[in-house]
Amino acid sequence: MTTTVRPDQTVTPSAATPPSPGATRTDVGEHIDVEALGKLLDGRWWELRRAARDLSLDPELQKIEGLPVAEHRERVLAQARLLAERGVVHRAYPASVGGQEDPGGNLASFEELAVADPSLQIKGGVQWGLFGSAILHLGNAEHHQRWLPGVLDLSVPGAFAMTEIGHGSDVAAIATTATYDEATEEFVIHTPITAARKEFLGNAALHGVAAVVFAQLITRGVNHGVHAFYVPIREKSGSGLRYLPGVDGSDDGLKGGLNGVDNGRLWFDHVRVPRTNLLNRYGDVAPDGTYSSPIDSPGRRFFTMLGTLVQGRVSLSGSAVSVSKMALAIAITYGSQRRQFTGADETSEVVLLDYQQHQRRLLPLLARTVAANLAHHELLDRFDGVFSGEHDTDDDRQDLETLAAAAKPLTTWLALETLQEAREACGGAGYMAENRLVGLRQDMDVYVTFEGDNNVLLQLVGKRLLTDYGKEMAKIDIAGAARYVAARAADMTLHRTPLRRAAQSVLDSGSRARSAGHLREADTQRELLEDRVEAMVAEIAGALRPARNASPVEAAALFNAHQHELIEAARAHGELLQWEAFTAALPKVRDPRTREVLTTLRDLYGLTMIEKNLAWYLMNGRISAQRAKTVTSYVDRLLVRLRPHAVDLVTAFGYRPEHLRATIATGVEAERQDEARAYFRRRRAAGQEPVNEKILHANQQKSGMAEPDEDD
Amino acid sequence: MTTTVRPDQTVTPSAATPPSPGATRTDVGEHIDVEALGKLLDGRWWELRRAARDLSLDPELQKIEGLPVAEHRERVLAQARLLAERGVVHRAYPASVGGQEDPGGNLASFEELAVADPSLQIKGGVQWGLFGSAILHLGNAEHHQRWLPGVLDLSVPGAFAMTEIGHGSDVAAIATTATYDEATEEFVIHTPITAARKEFLGNAALHGVAAVVFAQLITRGVNHGVHAFYVPIREKSGSGLRYLPGVDGSDDGLKGGLNGVDNGRLWFDHVRVPRTNLLNRYGDVAPDGTYSSPIDSPGRRFFTMLGTLVQGRVSLSGSAVSVSKMALAIAITYGSQRRQFTGADETSEVVLLDYQQHQRRLLPLLARTVAANLAHHELLDRFDGVFSGEHDTDDDRQDLETLAAAAKPLTTWLALETLQEAREACGGAGYMAENRLVGLRQDMDVYVTFEGDNNVLLQLVGKRLLTDYGKEMAKIDIAGAARYVAARAADMTLHRTPLRRAAQSVLDSGSRARSAGHLREADTQRELLEDRVEAMVAEIAGALRPARNASPVEAAALFNAHQHELIEAARAHGELLQWEAFTAALPKVRDPRTREVLTTLRDLYGLTMIEKNLAWYLMNGRISAQRAKTVTSYVDRLLVRLRPHAVDLVTAFGYRPEHLRATIATGVEAERQDEARAYFRRRRAAGQEPVNEKILHANQQKSGMAEPDEDD
Repeated sequence: MTTTVRPDQTVTPSAATPPSPGATRTDVGEHIDVEALGKLLDGRWWELRRAARDLSLDPELQKIEGLPVAEHRERVLAQARLLAERGVVHRAYPASVGGQEDPGGNLASFEELAVADPSLQIKGGVQWGLFGSAILHLGNAEHHQRWLPGVLDLSVPGAFAMTEIGHGSDVAAIATTATYDEATEEFVIHTPITAARKEFLGNAALHGVAAVVFAQLITRGVNHGVHAFYVPIREKSGSGLRYLPGVDGSDDGLKGGLNGVDNGRLWFDHVRVPRTNLLNRYGDVAPDGTYSSPIDSPGRRFFTMLGTLVQGRVSLSGSAVSVSKMALAIAITYGSQRRQFTGADETSEVVLLDYQQHQRRLLPLLARTVAANLAHHELLDRFDGVFSGEHDTDDDRQDLETLAAAAKPLTTWLALETLQEAREACGGAGYMAENRLVGLRQDMDVYVTFEGDNNVLLQLVGKRLLTDYGKEMAKIDIAGAARYVAARAADMTLHRTPLRRAAQSVLDSGSRARSAGHLREADTQRELLEDRVEAMVAEIAGALRPARNASPVEAAALFNAHQHELIEAARAHGELLQWEAFTAALPKVRDPRTREVLTTLRDLYGLTMIEKNLAWYLMNGRISAQRAKTVTSYVDRLLVRLRPHAVDLVTAFGYRPEHLRATIATGVEAERQDEARAYFRRRRAAGQEPVNEKILHANQQKSGMAEPDEDD
Repeated sequence: MTTTVRPDQTVTPSAATPPSPGATRTDVGEHIDVEALGKLLDGRWWELRRAARDLSLDPELQKIEGLPVAEHRERVLAQARLLAERGVVHRAYPASVGGQEDPGGNLASFEELAVADPSLQIKGGVQWGLFGSAILHLGNAEHHQRWLPGVLDLSVPGAFAMTEIGHGSDVAAIATTATYDEATEEFVIHTPITAARKEFLGNAALHGVAAVVFAQLITRGVNHGVHAFYVPIREKSGSGLRYLPGVDGSDDGLKGGLNGVDNGRLWFDHVRVPRTNLLNRYGDVAPDGTYSSPIDSPGRRFFTMLGTLVQGRVSLSGSAVSVSKMALAIAITYGSQRRQFTGADETSEVVLLDYQQHQRRLLPLLARTVAANLAHHELLDRFDGVFSGEHDTDDDRQDLETLAAAAKPLTTWLALETLQEAREACGGAGYMAENRLVGLRQDMDVYVTFEGDNNVLLQLVGKRLLTDYGKEMAKIDIAGAARYVAARAADMTLHRTPLRRAAQSVLDSGSRARSAGHLREADTQRELLEDRVEAMVAEIAGALRPARNASPVEAAALFNAHQHELIEAARAHGELLQWEAFTAALPKVRDPRTREVLTTLRDLYGLTMIEKNLAWYLMNGRISAQRAKTVTSYVDRLLVRLRPHAVDLVTAFGYRPEHLRATIATGVEAERQDEARAYFRRRRAAGQEPVNEKILHANQQKSGMAEPDEDD
């Protein structure tokens, strides 16, 4: 298993593509530093990441497309056992249970499991990322000693029983109850209604023998809100498993993808567990039924408990970036070899990637993927800071949650968009399972709605932006606007709060973009992107002000009338964070040519984001109609400049053909094209090629023998 | 089998949804005329369409999700045999072979087969729409008598061997050859290179015993271009089939969807067929090898031959509309029942469809789907006119091809977008195969690249727009601008050429939209949409003018630099056609309330198209910044107005739960919600509900017993 990128083995370097009409190729041959760029894109934990990627070189761990559901599930369980045996799943856990206490490295490695099979990633995510993490973060040291060994070696496959049929994203409203019985010192876990059945749980349909069940904790007639309980659900029965008394469930059956994970439902009929099965870090019940918690506020307690599980969102976001990179590596490799329709010279056909439309389809996605990649490093750093304990204040945790809530929607939607555009850009070949794009898309589809629905997450981010805006405005009222702005300008670190310049836009509305300043200057792009977020938030805050004095019904209606805007503001905020991460990474690139190409790619990201929202910039006077017209032509020029480097850029992603396992990314298309061109060249040279009737017509016309052939 | 829409059986009527915060519900209860609207949307051949839809009520014809590929293929073959037995596949064929010569009715009926299983539709499309149609349209009466009976009764399953691995959309460049041998009066069909292997052919992997093979016809040393040949490929061997000598092939295996169709490759090693196996309607070879054709120009001949196969594009477009309707029926039914997060009153949760973002996600797609539905009727009418012989001039055929090339990209992309948004709007439930959305999306995915890649088709439309623009400009030069404009204004029928007002925009640039005129007036919307197409085409034409005097290489580069714009112009043209079809249909609605709701839906379509391209309108001075800001708030108001009618509108689509076969569209969600609310009501009434800790805190605070709970 090697961890070195070998660009020579990966894809045809762009220099091998002969010049063809329609593309400026002046700089072909000036290769970028693929090795250094690859390391930058693989980030702080690049060695772990590459080792995890190379795990997928083992055929035992690879997805077999089209396997029947039952076989796929058993294969993935066996693969998960292999992972446990190889000790690659312990990394985030405490040393006391054999772990390495390396939360960041663990996620970096986990994210790359999607290369082997996204089902394996999610099966592992359920076991070690959700079930195990809940015990780790919500339980006490005794719980760790008692249950984590079985979690880690997979002798106790477990379900994470949070979601209910009736409540997806709204966890606080779940209806399963855990009622404390002082007489027996037990909790009674109960599912009172159909809507309270636990749903979509991995490991529930077949393999789970225990579950962490989230339920409303009721003791002494008071509901203390959602808490987590360790509940055994199955026992051995002959060679198989059967439900324990009071537990029942059903199988979700076939899904749109991820069919290696055995999702199912679970429900409970007055199932009793000992009092000590309450994972009691944030809330405990004494033998006599007295409730206690280190966090007084039930609301804050709830969000603190859920917050410990943020790693799901962080790692799904990282996986989505990895899969986007794979999709682009496949489509850009194929697009640099495939030819279609003859060009100006009539003897050879044009390479797909030389068509402007093909560049328009793929290169902005390449820019977004690199932006998302670099932004993910910052998210992962922040995650590691909190979970390693290095930066673990309440504020750090809240910022991390907001960043994850902003990142995951953008990256998971990006993955779907990239996979689909890649699949279409490869035509019919893209639809064949052997070329991986359709299978990956099927698997990734659910990433946009699980671990927090993307729209719900963006709304969370939007609410945070509004809260921060409110606080900033309050500060201005107290300290005076001028001093405030000066203070903010000095505070441009990466660890500032999500809404950075908050109220400044009220005072200073983007003079640079309206002036003659150049759209390709980083400061112009930053100003435009920042200004939009800030102005949108300020506008929504203003529109919502009457809600303070309104009835709850009116206030809810007013908020609802601005829900779409709020979600768009959150999206804009997430895009700004990606742009900033991209820009912050540029000075790290030493080779000037590589930095230049990467800066062009950053410009493409910035300008396509501005282009997408051009109407907003025009309506709000941030950009003149004259300048706006230049945005698209700038973008077109950037595409031409980036085209010669497209193959190098995806080579730097470090997914070699043996990782991609897509027939069309192996070079077969180039071989076929070469064979075809050699054949026709030979035929022409030997005079074996029949005369084309069109040419015959043209010659006859010249000598007056035929009618003019006007429709050709 | 009934063909009547029974709205009572379909989905919960909107009146049953109780009012909830955030939505204006003043007009709830004023139902639209679902029956009449249903008939309008089912169009001219509504009876055939409904009968075909009801075919899917037979479990034998229904798709079983997750069937292994081999079983699915055999099931679909058996289903196709059932269709043949029931005589529903003959409709388009001549009376001489048992047909009814009803091309429009045939397609209307064929389009609805996607309800049963899109694989069945495509299997049928290969057999009767491509293989059979090629014999019908490219062959002579003797060919019809000899081969069509076997095609129709499916005793001769056939492949349509046009596409090659090396050439997808560029059919003119295929490399398979059919060389005439005078000595034996045979054609020699040959695959000279790997890239010339026929690829992605339905019926090729398993079931096909013959194929219509497209190849370069070479006789007497001259290549006369692509022609079609009837070529037997397999013979019986024991209980199975084996390749005939010289024929070989391979199986494409698993695909992203449509796995009931046995796609594969075919190639030929000097396979000999009699001279009379040339489908010779547009080009023939005499025994002595002399070539003749009723069409002199090889280019026109090629496009005439391919043009006979336009029905594939027309019917795929219609199917895509049907599937979009199914997806919306599922998601809107579920969205009108599903509740998530408590509203202002704290005791009941808000129905998803009352959230603004949910409306934003689904209702514009509903408007686009109805627009596409009504536009499809016009396309189908035009198709019927040409193929019934009623309006069958060269111009009619060219217009039909341009219309189909504009329609198919828009509708097939709409279907994918709608299926995906519907799937996400249904959350995890949308990802379950039992709810159909993921399976339909997998099947429909390939519709955007087969039967003409969507981007290639839009480029074709763009080129036609440029050609028409050139002709119009030439007319102006001759006849004088003023007289021309007057003449065009009078020529506003539905059968005008694709680019209707062509050069008028040069003379008159949209005064209404800039003036105080209302954006909701139909004339304003029309002017804005038309003006954009025309101005874009004029601008591209202007930019391409230097190509006339440029070298071929420079001309190709110049064209390529405007490829993206040209494709966008074609898309805008397609959207305009849909808007016009929607508007033209409004007077046909008799019930005033229904017409009002449908007009609001048309406005939503028009305004969301304008909103999408707002930057263009602003940059080009068609709309002021002030007016542009009102577009989004107009859209928001339309959503609120349409919300109460959303369920009625999808009921009018006529897909009942037994057509949809999606668990979440059967009312189970409403049952679960009702059960849950009744349970909590009962508990509250009986005083069994535990006190919520939050409320306890609030009470303690009031009496000064606890710290303020600031974070709730």
